[in-house]
Amino acid sequence: MALYGECGFDSTTVADIAERAGLTERTFFRHFPDKREVLFDGAGLLQELLVTTVADAPESLSPLDAVGAGLYAVGEMLQERREFSRQRQAIIAASAELRERELIKLASLSAALADTVRRRGVPEPDASLTAEAGIAVFRIAFERWVQETNGRELPELMRDSLDHLRAVTSET
Amino acid sequence: MALYGECGFDSTTVADIAERAGLTERTFFRHFPDKREVLFDGAGLLQELLVTTVADAPESLSPLDAVGAGLYAVGEMLQERREFSRQRQAIIAASAELRERELIKLASLSAALADTVRRRGVPEPDASLTAEAGIAVFRIAFERWVQETNGRELPELMRDSLDHLRAVTSET
Repeated sequence: MALYGECGFDSTTVADIAERAGLTERTFFRHFPDKREVLFDGAGLLQELLVTTVADAPESLSPLDAVGAGLYAVGEMLQERREFSRQRQAIIAASAELRERELIKLASLSAALADTVRRRGVPEPDASLTAEAGIAVFRIAFERWVQETNGRELPELMRDSLDHLRAVTSET
Repeated sequence: MALYGECGFDSTTVADIAERAGLTERTFFRHFPDKREVLFDGAGLLQELLVTTVADAPESLSPLDAVGAGLYAVGEMLQERREFSRQRQAIIAASAELRERELIKLASLSAALADTVRRRGVPEPDASLTAEAGIAVFRIAFERWVQETNGRELPELMRDSLDHLRAVTSET
């Protein structure tokens, strides 16, 4: 990832990455289908943590609060990797190709989340709407965090963004 | 678009499309940056209608209700083009490349919507959260509509999905 930061995503080749990592190109492609995937290596881990936390949340929690518990856990994980996350986000923001890939990852995250909410006994369309609302909170909290100058941490921003979402949807 | 339906998106070339439309490839590329864009030709019109309706909604409406008015208008526009929309969605669903492009379009729609909500005097993060909530309602209502077998129309499904979103976010 350092290479993407130094040279830009577009002008970094798989050969460059493999060389820096001390791998052959062939080994690289055994791990990643293409050079975009390098930046999304953690997506599986993040999805796993989100889905497991939501599935294991107390039954007494409302569906959105269960999702909120998952977002909080993800927030804690990413907070530990603040510098990495900021750099990564700057690289993604600079490339249309990478922004597309990121949106695809968020869409699968939303689908996995909807699935988990359904398994908590929530019918459609409520399960999908709860998942989409959760992903909206995730995106906004993440954006606020990356731009944050007052040192507010991601778990707190997740909670705060969820409160704001509840406020804007309850206003009539 | 008929060609994409007959032969699949991947195996249709720009030369095929230009021939069917009685154009040269050069003329094609004067209108569309690539062959994916053909399917998103209406995105600008849809965004325009959404944004204008939200901007012109009565000041007395809450931000999310103003967005709801825009979604209803868009629902009416698309309802007029139900067959076209269904065919188009089937083509998009079958291609990873097209799904990516569609997500990019939805992300710009969300950004334009957030901008409009901000111009109604709503501060951040509320404006972005309202826009994201609106896009979530749009996606879910659209999916329900494409799969709809009971003849429910899109404007009604937009309204119903918004009600469901309010219900899932108010539960604690």
